[in-house]
Amino acid sequence: MSRASTLADLGEGRLIDRIARMARRLDQPGVVLGIGDDAAILRPRPGEDLVTSTDAMVEDVHFRWGEQSPVTVGRRALVANLSDLAAMGARPLGFSLALSAPPSLELARFDGVLRGLLREAQIHRCPLVGGNLARATQTSLAIHVLGGVPRGRALRRDALRAGDRLYVTGQLGSAALARAVAESEARPIRQLPVPRLAAGRALLALPGRGACIDLSDGLLADLGHLLRGTGLGAQLEPESLPLAPGFARRCRALSLDPLALALAGGEDYELLFSIRARPAARLSVSRLARRLGVGVSAIGTITREEGIAGVPRFESFLHY
Amino acid sequence: MSRASTLADLGEGRLIDRIARMARRLDQPGVVLGIGDDAAILRPRPGEDLVTSTDAMVEDVHFRWGEQSPVTVGRRALVANLSDLAAMGARPLGFSLALSAPPSLELARFDGVLRGLLREAQIHRCPLVGGNLARATQTSLAIHVLGGVPRGRALRRDALRAGDRLYVTGQLGSAALARAVAESEARPIRQLPVPRLAAGRALLALPGRGACIDLSDGLLADLGHLLRGTGLGAQLEPESLPLAPGFARRCRALSLDPLALALAGGEDYELLFSIRARPAARLSVSRLARRLGVGVSAIGTITREEGIAGVPRFESFLHY
Repeated sequence: MSRASTLADLGEGRLIDRIARMARRLDQPGVVLGIGDDAAILRPRPGEDLVTSTDAMVEDVHFRWGEQSPVTVGRRALVANLSDLAAMGARPLGFSLALSAPPSLELARFDGVLRGLLREAQIHRCPLVGGNLARATQTSLAIHVLGGVPRGRALRRDALRAGDRLYVTGQLGSAALARAVAESEARPIRQLPVPRLAAGRALLALPGRGACIDLSDGLLADLGHLLRGTGLGAQLEPESLPLAPGFARRCRALSLDPLALALAGGEDYELLFSIRARPAARLSVSRLARRLGVGVSAIGTITREEGIAGVPRFESFLHY
Repeated sequence: MSRASTLADLGEGRLIDRIARMARRLDQPGVVLGIGDDAAILRPRPGEDLVTSTDAMVEDVHFRWGEQSPVTVGRRALVANLSDLAAMGARPLGFSLALSAPPSLELARFDGVLRGLLREAQIHRCPLVGGNLARATQTSLAIHVLGGVPRGRALRRDALRAGDRLYVTGQLGSAALARAVAESEARPIRQLPVPRLAAGRALLALPGRGACIDLSDGLLADLGHLLRGTGLGAQLEPESLPLAPGFARRCRALSLDPLALALAGGEDYELLFSIRARPAARLSVSRLARRLGVGVSAIGTITREEGIAGVPRFESFLHY
């Protein structure tokens, strides 16, 4: 046969073999049985709860082939899922991939997406253990990630309390700025977010820890998710929002409002978390940063008054 | 607002609330935290391995709206996944749903699919614990199911040995016949397969148990999957293939070859399993059926000669 260049040229059986071959290099101790049976078998550590999350990326909705390399598409897809594990304080156990694609999809794109997924999987020790391949008109990646967390200890949104201090890891708005820069220069997005897995696990051991969520839609939207149904609100301190050096200047060069990007940019995948008032008062931000192994900023307080105060409202920059 | 009739009318937030409300009635002890956080939290029993499988159903590839009711689409989607747990001998812990759909999808179809999923979930005690909702041009359901199995005891394909006797639960070809009848009468398919969860769990305790796989693509195709890479083959006994009463007559009325349907029909979701020669010789099929709680037929033997002998070759009736 001549060189295969699309999925149809190769056929389902050989595509699955290809995935299995690429994935096999990553097997790790918690995986009893990987790709190839009716199901995979994983072995959480004794006393661990199981954490499970699903996220999907659809062509022309969440990504466009022209705007990022296939490798980046794959890496971002897994990062979004690993970030959900980070927000629960969980360690990765493995992930499954439901990949739908048109038979005309170039094999180079398929391979690129897989390489991206597996590179991120290797970095965070989260092996690909199974999945499904289906024909569809659009390419989409539905990823299901599994993690382990000490029993009863997961970081939960419902642990939010009035008086909690609010913190965020890393910097805000950088992902949105990178998207805008790439668009203005008509080149692919190269910036890649980092799932805050180590910081999430370190939070588990922090006295007075409260709630945690990862920032996928943007600070305002995700803080809104955290507050939803609690009857609580938040007082934000806009001057404390962590911005990368030169962020404001680079935003203005593109006629963008830095505050809007920081509050509503989306896809930063930083952690937003709370600590009870009293331990927070005794804990300097620099000590907290050392414990979590990442920059941390105190950005506000949880109040008994519903709504988010202290900052203007912006709609999320993401419209999925 | 007037009555919502499409997904776009309702919007993502309210669709997720709707799913969460419908799913909440099904929470069960193993679910520590269901829909609504960054991830769900499940608690397998002490000493359990975790079994995990993914399957997707895509509109116009795996189902057509006109050919089955939305409830049936939902039920079949979960059955396909539960059947994978059955083939491992696992009990269900929960499932996640990555649902992609066009904003123009009628809410009645969305609700029907969900009701179907949740009805099957209730029957088999497999609660919906999370998922993802995405916009797409086609409707698709990527389901990820989780199960628990006593540590190191899961039924695996690689447990196949030369000399094993081959068995199948239930009857073969019925799903393909039901599809053909529905097509010839231009009415929706009503027949629903049953995942053989109890039979799979009973197999775990059977002395001399060998390999197991569920029949999704058809006996020949799935037996081929079981044999693949083992260097082994199978000798089938076509006169022993279990057919429903009147099956051959009903096939012929539609000019269909009963043997072809039984061997290659697909979507029966019965279990194909093996037992070592010696315990098999001492075990009557009727005693085996009592232990597994379902009809069982001995249909052949695993041999050292590669390939499937004793029956004609048929291509799978399913072309996904």
